[in-house]
Amino acid sequence: MKTCVILCAMPVSDYEFVQPYVNKADLLIAADGGVRHAQALGAVPDIILGDFDSWDGDLPACGKVIRLPAEKDDTDTMFAVKLALERGCDFFYLIGALGGRLDHTMANIQTLAYLREHGARGVLLSRENIVFLLKDELAAVPRVPNHKLSVFALSPVCRGINLAQVKYPLREYTLDNRFPLGVSNEFEAEQAIVQVRQGELLVILSENN
Amino acid sequence: MKTCVILCAMPVSDYEFVQPYVNKADLLIAADGGVRHAQALGAVPDIILGDFDSWDGDLPACGKVIRLPAEKDDTDTMFAVKLALERGCDFFYLIGALGGRLDHTMANIQTLAYLREHGARGVLLSRENIVFLLKDELAAVPRVPNHKLSVFALSPVCRGINLAQVKYPLREYTLDNRFPLGVSNEFEAEQAIVQVRQGELLVILSENN
Repeated sequence: MKTCVILCAMPVSDYEFVQPYVNKADLLIAADGGVRHAQALGAVPDIILGDFDSWDGDLPACGKVIRLPAEKDDTDTMFAVKLALERGCDFFYLIGALGGRLDHTMANIQTLAYLREHGARGVLLSRENIVFLLKDELAAVPRVPNHKLSVFALSPVCRGINLAQVKYPLREYTLDNRFPLGVSNEFEAEQAIVQVRQGELLVILSENN
Repeated sequence: MKTCVILCAMPVSDYEFVQPYVNKADLLIAADGGVRHAQALGAVPDIILGDFDSWDGDLPACGKVIRLPAEKDDTDTMFAVKLALERGCDFFYLIGALGGRLDHTMANIQTLAYLREHGARGVLLSRENIVFLLKDELAAVPRVPNHKLSVFALSPVCRGINLAQVKYPLREYTLDNRFPLGVSNEFEAEQAIVQVRQGELLVILSENN
């Protein structure tokens, strides 16, 4: 597994929380305003890219700078994703990908489906929210203290959903993308078992507040 | 048109912005922690409902209180939506529905599709983000100063997307839910024209920051 960490431009509230994940990077990319996260983390990106519309300081030390035009089809994050896929990365942590503008958050959620379609997996990671996608599979999801577990159909319909080791289990349940039944479940063990036999299921761990 | 306003439990940063919409309510429901928004707005809800897991004060004056069990399938918001649909409401503003926990935000986005399926329309409303859904239709979207306009396929595929009077127009475009191409467009007139011939298209107006 080759891991790419992309530092995106949205806020990061807790650098200590994300540091261990950044340390796992085989390829570290700072996308535009994400440069400030690299500085805060004391990390040297392999690549800094962007139109730098959200960054007007000097660029710090890094392996390489790629300047993108301001007017382009891809977001900076999506450009980074494509580049890392080309370089053989198959696991992604996107940090600074949540908690700012809702349009960017939504774009990053959809990027998880793009990654899956291209043979890779991704996690949107902050202390407040951890987001990933399951497709036709079963996963053991480690408990995160003080976080609820929610599942949403990203496909129109998800079939054969099983949730175990949680407060409100589901058994061979069918969930559609117009009825949010799977919100705010609770871990009842050190890991929850989440299965979706058919469809793309978005899993969100959200911190209680 | 019979308008329901639901005050949900997530934060509201700007009461002045939402006040005119609250004033349009034929039916005003405060869902659980949304009670505090009613107080801040000086509004008397027709109905207050919830398990009151996010509210431990006294309940203010209102038409009716409905106490829900803490363990239930519906979220408080979804219970309010169903109730208002039964009472003939066909247009909904959900306030306090964004900007808190991502799982709740995602649930509320899916609720827009639930409303559409039940012959109604909804808008998730805050100063920072205005979110609604178009299905097989054309809409003139009024410019909101200092806001970007983004569109996302909520269906797996949206066909025949046309965007006009924006900086980056689209013409008979096909957008899928795994590639966020429609992010951060800009109004070029007092209204943008947004059309989707086939599919459910999520429209998000996000405040620049």
